[in-house]
Amino acid sequence: MSRRPLLSSASIALTEAVEVLDERGRRSTISIPAERPLTVYVDKRELVTLMTLGAAPEMLTLGYLRNQRLVRSIDDIASIQVDWQVGAVAVTTREGIDNIEARTAKRVVTTGCGQGSVFGELMDEVDDIALPEAARLTQSTLYRVVDAIRTHPSIYKQAGSVHGCGLFSAEGELLTFIEDVGRHNAVDSIAGRMWLDGIAGGDKVFYTTGRLTSEMVIKGAQMGIPFLLSRSGTTQMGHTVAQRVGMTLLARCTGKHFLLLSGKERFVFEPEWFDALPGLAAR
Amino acid sequence: MSRRPLLSSASIALTEAVEVLDERGRRSTISIPAERPLTVYVDKRELVTLMTLGAAPEMLTLGYLRNQRLVRSIDDIASIQVDWQVGAVAVTTREGIDNIEARTAKRVVTTGCGQGSVFGELMDEVDDIALPEAARLTQSTLYRVVDAIRTHPSIYKQAGSVHGCGLFSAEGELLTFIEDVGRHNAVDSIAGRMWLDGIAGGDKVFYTTGRLTSEMVIKGAQMGIPFLLSRSGTTQMGHTVAQRVGMTLLARCTGKHFLLLSGKERFVFEPEWFDALPGLAAR
Repeated sequence: MSRRPLLSSASIALTEAVEVLDERGRRSTISIPAERPLTVYVDKRELVTLMTLGAAPEMLTLGYLRNQRLVRSIDDIASIQVDWQVGAVAVTTREGIDNIEARTAKRVVTTGCGQGSVFGELMDEVDDIALPEAARLTQSTLYRVVDAIRTHPSIYKQAGSVHGCGLFSAEGELLTFIEDVGRHNAVDSIAGRMWLDGIAGGDKVFYTTGRLTSEMVIKGAQMGIPFLLSRSGTTQMGHTVAQRVGMTLLARCTGKHFLLLSGKERFVFEPEWFDALPGLAAR
Repeated sequence: MSRRPLLSSASIALTEAVEVLDERGRRSTISIPAERPLTVYVDKRELVTLMTLGAAPEMLTLGYLRNQRLVRSIDDIASIQVDWQVGAVAVTTREGIDNIEARTAKRVVTTGCGQGSVFGELMDEVDDIALPEAARLTQSTLYRVVDAIRTHPSIYKQAGSVHGCGLFSAEGELLTFIEDVGRHNAVDSIAGRMWLDGIAGGDKVFYTTGRLTSEMVIKGAQMGIPFLLSRSGTTQMGHTVAQRVGMTLLARCTGKHFLLLSGKERFVFEPEWFDALPGLAAR
């Protein structure tokens, strides 16, 4: 723990009130989520600018470095210092990053819902990933997860237009919930938290409000998480990658409804539970 | 027109049927949208890999080159040839691209809903953009646009999990509708179509099912379109950029509802029309 990086704990307003006119010309004020640039400097070298809500900039930076495979071990990071005055985060590594030029050279512009940028050969890594076969998710735990997300306070409820990600224990206890304007930023931030705290993914459940596209599934697999749940749907490649890594993929999780798409052997149906949760209105 | 680039017209399946189990363990088959890599080669040099639905690969490639400001004029492009066999598109320019290395060096990883990658200094260009002040959008035309999108056949209706963009005339006539798994790809594809056909944006209306984040507003402004409509919401920077370029921004456009966020002077309220369109059920 003496090697734990030194982190700032920068905070900044996450919503803004703006005046609007509705269809009847009525004036009102609504909240919209913040979106701001955060330029990442690694050992004083500019790496990238992330557009973010700003809720968890340190975790986002850590997760980005991890998911882009730019830093191999959390121990290599000495410090993460966010300064919203200048919209920058200074990352200091203990021994520098080997051939960062080469590592950031190749771009795969992915489409979670935009053109997410993933450097390197993430796809190639997928085949090396082995998710725990013995892990199980019961239907009642799934409902606990969905209900926890439904009732959790969020920027989404205040202002809309953000995506949320939640990391849950095998029992459906919410461990971390992070929102961002970009769903890839939200998942990266969760990855940063897991990396920082040495949280293993093998017995965890991951929930995202975003779609299960290839990049989301790959990131979930890289975090070693066998269960990936979404309120939204999936794409052909998201589905294909999930099957390839043997991930249990559940889409359209709202209220009592869900669609189990892959890794069915890890899911435990509980018919007796199905009608036992009146609190779960369909959404 | 002799300078018009030679385009392939590659087509490929846009949905896949997959077997799922629902909350009662019932087996069924659903359609999910395709998502596949398209690697862009410019004059035999690998540029980027876009993850796409595959509905309009030639337009996507053109729009990507344009919106990333990698090619200044459509006349500079001799040929766009897509080959789904290898998931690649070969772009041939007439005289090569000047310092493409430098132009693609700086990354801004934006968050439409992911980490969209925009090379160069797009933000800087915003201040040079002047959108036509005289353009007007009437409430009835807005409703025509929303209804056209609502009734247009789409992959979204078949399979969900894609975003759609529509380009409309000042009278609310649908000119082009393109869907993609990434909303940035969809808008880039529309930009490609406009570039190819020399369609000016000044008297057009642009509709997207995606959120109005900074990158979406910037791209709309770069296309010279004064009216940007969305079924979804906006973010602080999307709103700020719209105000800066004087764009008329309308969010939450569903049924008869909408929120006018900026550029109010271009919008013409028509109270008399408000109750005149029974066909427009709230969505």
